[in-house]
Amino acid sequence: MTIKDVAAYCGVSVSTVSRVLNQHPDVSPAVRERVSRAIQECHYVPNNSARSLVASRSTAVGVVVRGVGNPFFSELIPTIEKEIDRRGYTMVLHQINVQDDEIQKAAVLEREKRLLGVVFLGGRFNYTEAELQQLSVPFVCCTYTNTFGNLREDAYSSVSIRDEDEACRAVHILYEHGHRRIAVLLDDPADNSIGQLRWQGYRRALRECGLPFDPALAEFSGGYDMPDAYRGTCELLERGAEFTALLAISDSMAIAAVKALVDRGHRVPQDCSVIAIDGLELSKYMIPTLTTLRQPAGAMARQSIQTLIELVEGRGSHRHLLLETTLRQGDSVISLR
Amino acid sequence: MTIKDVAAYCGVSVSTVSRVLNQHPDVSPAVRERVSRAIQECHYVPNNSARSLVASRSTAVGVVVRGVGNPFFSELIPTIEKEIDRRGYTMVLHQINVQDDEIQKAAVLEREKRLLGVVFLGGRFNYTEAELQQLSVPFVCCTYTNTFGNLREDAYSSVSIRDEDEACRAVHILYEHGHRRIAVLLDDPADNSIGQLRWQGYRRALRECGLPFDPALAEFSGGYDMPDAYRGTCELLERGAEFTALLAISDSMAIAAVKALVDRGHRVPQDCSVIAIDGLELSKYMIPTLTTLRQPAGAMARQSIQTLIELVEGRGSHRHLLLETTLRQGDSVISLR
Repeated sequence: MTIKDVAAYCGVSVSTVSRVLNQHPDVSPAVRERVSRAIQECHYVPNNSARSLVASRSTAVGVVVRGVGNPFFSELIPTIEKEIDRRGYTMVLHQINVQDDEIQKAAVLEREKRLLGVVFLGGRFNYTEAELQQLSVPFVCCTYTNTFGNLREDAYSSVSIRDEDEACRAVHILYEHGHRRIAVLLDDPADNSIGQLRWQGYRRALRECGLPFDPALAEFSGGYDMPDAYRGTCELLERGAEFTALLAISDSMAIAAVKALVDRGHRVPQDCSVIAIDGLELSKYMIPTLTTLRQPAGAMARQSIQTLIELVEGRGSHRHLLLETTLRQGDSVISLR
Repeated sequence: MTIKDVAAYCGVSVSTVSRVLNQHPDVSPAVRERVSRAIQECHYVPNNSARSLVASRSTAVGVVVRGVGNPFFSELIPTIEKEIDRRGYTMVLHQINVQDDEIQKAAVLEREKRLLGVVFLGGRFNYTEAELQQLSVPFVCCTYTNTFGNLREDAYSSVSIRDEDEACRAVHILYEHGHRRIAVLLDDPADNSIGQLRWQGYRRALRECGLPFDPALAEFSGGYDMPDAYRGTCELLERGAEFTALLAISDSMAIAAVKALVDRGHRVPQDCSVIAIDGLELSKYMIPTLTTLRQPAGAMARQSIQTLIELVEGRGSHRHLLLETTLRQGDSVISLR
């Protein structure tokens, strides 16, 4: 079955079939419908010869995901894959654990899979020039940037939110609702990563609001996983910390925190308000619906791939994009006033 | 930096460094530790020459995911990737929408990405011999099998649960808890897929329990997404259906159903028990914790890849594995007795 057979079957020209296959606009809906049906009925498989000719050249773009099972990354990956695919490249997805070094892993992957470029989905914020010499292809940090490292701005690209500012904003929202005893749940205040920046944002917000810092209200659960967050929240409660509101630095941590609070007899939001950062689709279906600062997941994915592919094709230069979150009002924050 | 430099740096032989890199057991813990630290400190990137030599040969294994954002698939993918990777192959992940034809998409992908084999993560159950001629590499249906099609058993492989039996079992569990008015929430009873088999299981369980079938208790939400399931549950309630228990055919549908019930003033489980099939990690953190039949996600992923790679390497023959679920008791089912 060739494209000629399909054309003959439909009584149209080969170039019409080609236009339908390539989704050109200049085909009437009726013809498009007829050709599409014929392609299905004949089980015709288009053989994109332009792509086949260059098949010995690599089309591989690496996506290194740090933190297996991070649900925010699960929301980004479908868009990343689509964006890579529609430009004629191939996504090579590689998942690593939080304790793995993503640069080392990517460098091995670059050689084994002949990568043309790498997107890091999550990572450390403290890369050094020396470390980076392991990688000889361009890369984009997606969801973070190299705040604590010493890379030159023109040595890499990044697409992220302002992590410190957003955590600060979340605390201000709680403050505006009348909360004064505000706890925070994060992985590690010195992780050289998201946790550290959001911790700084929490501390800054307290200062800006004129609230004293109480170490008893800060819980470092050691990880982003829901079991860690659940355990951390239980410890916060067990040591008798008194608070009317909690900032969890990710939606999935907030989901586990709400569960821990409720399991220990605290109503959310009546006894404790909870706010988070991420804006997972899922957290709309929590009880109560989570109030959260939604990261622009689609835009982050699209901008990361556009930036990387332009670099791979020698058409662009490194850039650092900072995107905004939007507050998604749920039912997990209550006003004390 | 070469392997020789690392060996000199540590004062060990090149073959010792090689054994550490390849994780051979015959290295003392102290030497392993010293070499590993040196590899990190020197930023040494192992260049696996055996793999490099054959780099012009494809190592691509396709994973075609039907239903973007299905959280059960998100739990399977990390294991699938690890299993493909540790055998020296490369995962090419491609996500398609539920309305796309996975065979057609895989056939295009096979040619463009030079795939050696395909794992379908979700798909129709009604493939015909004619359709399959589009694919010239072996494939494994992961999470389903070709119940409604006409393929010969030796033409493909599958790893799945007994969907009809498991849905039947879920209804029996509700029955044993004293429930007699049992509703069901599924996508489509004639989807030639999971929905159809689980619908058959629901109907069979009613017969086995001697319960009459009431069409008002069956809600077909048209999709697996949480918005669909939420809307479907609201419609079930709006048409005045009276039930004390609900079977949702996936965890994420159950999560949305619980939300809809609670939003409409029904307590779960006091007013309505809810049971599901999947066993997501996440559903342990729902309020109430979801009672669900857990699919063996890790085993499904491992068995699928082992089967496929054996076929790709000409070492195995097609097989059809049926795995068991385990009941994970939550708090969403209450006994009426």
